[in-house]
Amino acid sequence: MKTREVLLAARPTGAPRPADFRLVDVEVPEPKPGEILVRNIYMSVDPYMRGRMNEKQTYAQAWQIGQPADGRAVGEVMKSQNPRFPVGAIVASNLGWREHYVCNGEGVLTIDRALAPLSAFLGVLGVPGFTGWYGLKEIGRPKSGETLVVSGAAGATGSLVVQIGKILGCRVVGTAGTDDKCAWLTKQLGADAAINYRKAGDLAAAVREACPKGVDAYYENVGGAILDAVLAIVNPFARIALCGMISQYNMSTPPPGPANIRNMVGNRVLMQGFIISDHMNRYPEFLAEVGGWLNAGRVKYEETIIDGLDRAVTAFLGLFAGDNTGKMIVRLGPEPAAAGAR
Amino acid sequence: MKTREVLLAARPTGAPRPADFRLVDVEVPEPKPGEILVRNIYMSVDPYMRGRMNEKQTYAQAWQIGQPADGRAVGEVMKSQNPRFPVGAIVASNLGWREHYVCNGEGVLTIDRALAPLSAFLGVLGVPGFTGWYGLKEIGRPKSGETLVVSGAAGATGSLVVQIGKILGCRVVGTAGTDDKCAWLTKQLGADAAINYRKAGDLAAAVREACPKGVDAYYENVGGAILDAVLAIVNPFARIALCGMISQYNMSTPPPGPANIRNMVGNRVLMQGFIISDHMNRYPEFLAEVGGWLNAGRVKYEETIIDGLDRAVTAFLGLFAGDNTGKMIVRLGPEPAAAGAR
Repeated sequence: MKTREVLLAARPTGAPRPADFRLVDVEVPEPKPGEILVRNIYMSVDPYMRGRMNEKQTYAQAWQIGQPADGRAVGEVMKSQNPRFPVGAIVASNLGWREHYVCNGEGVLTIDRALAPLSAFLGVLGVPGFTGWYGLKEIGRPKSGETLVVSGAAGATGSLVVQIGKILGCRVVGTAGTDDKCAWLTKQLGADAAINYRKAGDLAAAVREACPKGVDAYYENVGGAILDAVLAIVNPFARIALCGMISQYNMSTPPPGPANIRNMVGNRVLMQGFIISDHMNRYPEFLAEVGGWLNAGRVKYEETIIDGLDRAVTAFLGLFAGDNTGKMIVRLGPEPAAAGAR
Repeated sequence: MKTREVLLAARPTGAPRPADFRLVDVEVPEPKPGEILVRNIYMSVDPYMRGRMNEKQTYAQAWQIGQPADGRAVGEVMKSQNPRFPVGAIVASNLGWREHYVCNGEGVLTIDRALAPLSAFLGVLGVPGFTGWYGLKEIGRPKSGETLVVSGAAGATGSLVVQIGKILGCRVVGTAGTDDKCAWLTKQLGADAAINYRKAGDLAAAVREACPKGVDAYYENVGGAILDAVLAIVNPFARIALCGMISQYNMSTPPPGPANIRNMVGNRVLMQGFIISDHMNRYPEFLAEVGGWLNAGRVKYEETIIDGLDRAVTAFLGLFAGDNTGKMIVRLGPEPAAAGAR
């Protein structure tokens, strides 16, 4: 049978363009013994993928020109020659950016549909949520009564960080790029204040006003001026978790760094970058805790769903324009009926 | 009796000037019961004291206008009404910037003259050495075979950090501001390379050349361009100990921060500021380890000694011009003969 996949066609300098990708038809082989054929239902587009378009290897393997892109996806097993994955099983894999695939099951995980809707396994219960949970708990370490600032707060990761901060008893201030996102943060997710960085004017003053007691923990998704504004008013022993700096991914030359970095010395500030793939052993613990909060209604999530593999590139590019509220997801096909109805 | 002390006369904006201080004659009272009269022999001038000239309280208490400055000093007990400190005892205190003082012994420590020359208790075995030892061991954590970069490497703190790095088996690269200091680092202290930041031209290129395997640990005393050059070539899981940023202490407005801070994310870099007074409980452990190295000849130190309280301000201002190699010390009076000779 035929299927479609998205190749990397060219390596961008600066902002990626649609022409850097190509949608192609390919043949899907029949699964051999030990193999499964999976139909993808949802695939993830994530900011970190910008780094994979570069030639230089970073922590995640570079995509190769002429080869399919890859990333997290959730799909349904259509044919199986592997007893671990019966037909009808719902599985998560790293084989996104394609409508079907055949593989031997390595790196494929069966998903418990009872826990949450399928798409949630790419967002709040997937790598973006796991990233937020880990970075906040292990690096940000906010305590009750402290002030937590989250940049990119309306994104897949940031929106969970905001809510965990509230569960932990913090004053939580989020930044986002539209008034609608800010309203979502304060009215739906419980943030104490939200700053529209595009409209704030003097961002440092806006952060100062929103954090009258200074900043004890900062969860960084964006980079640039917000980090500097936070460093201007960090409290002693503040912790800064560096998850990402999406504002800089399309810049060939980085902008000047935070002038207020010198405040880190006297205030004994800790700043630490991390990559979630170093910590996959903590995923079950995350799934138990955040899955529990989700089912108890203590954690909410939003998704921006784009339909069709032919629009996956649009969805990906939209991340850098801030087109998404919550997790940006590409739907590749219909969900199967729930297990009981089969 | 009369003695002399140095007052803060004015708060500087930018670089301090001699007129910001005033040398005055004051009366020293007779010690009352529980008190001691101490003649200071050596006093310390340190970069962190610049922060104490500002009105704004930082981690160290601000000096008050019209009041004597203070800081570490080593002296001899001349009169005693306190059995813990007999006449002739050598003591360290925070009552520098004066030739004599009377106090009740609070915060005063008796020094073991057998361990090292008296002035060493203000440098390699005092707070500067302790600061280097703690920051390197607890934050920098260099392992054998790794590359350690030290800025301000010819200073009181940096020069010990360089030597501990060599004891731990690292490739050690130091930066300093004169060719003589650089020669001291490589020829006397064992540094593998030294960079004269004033002559290097392209500092990033110089750091890259000196660190062909990248940087695993960085000990920061200076701030600015060196930090950025290090961040350009940090290795995964690098650690950066922020001890001080002397290049910025006299700036009212901080310069742009390190553009390469974005490299901290993918490389999982940890950067942490610290203040040694938070960790005084570790001082005995430091004294045992570094005192042992000193007596075994594994650690060397240099001092730049300026004579006379009337030149204490000159010595202090000289720190910001890089006038010192090793510890900058002001000698206020002669050392007493060793105990055996008394």
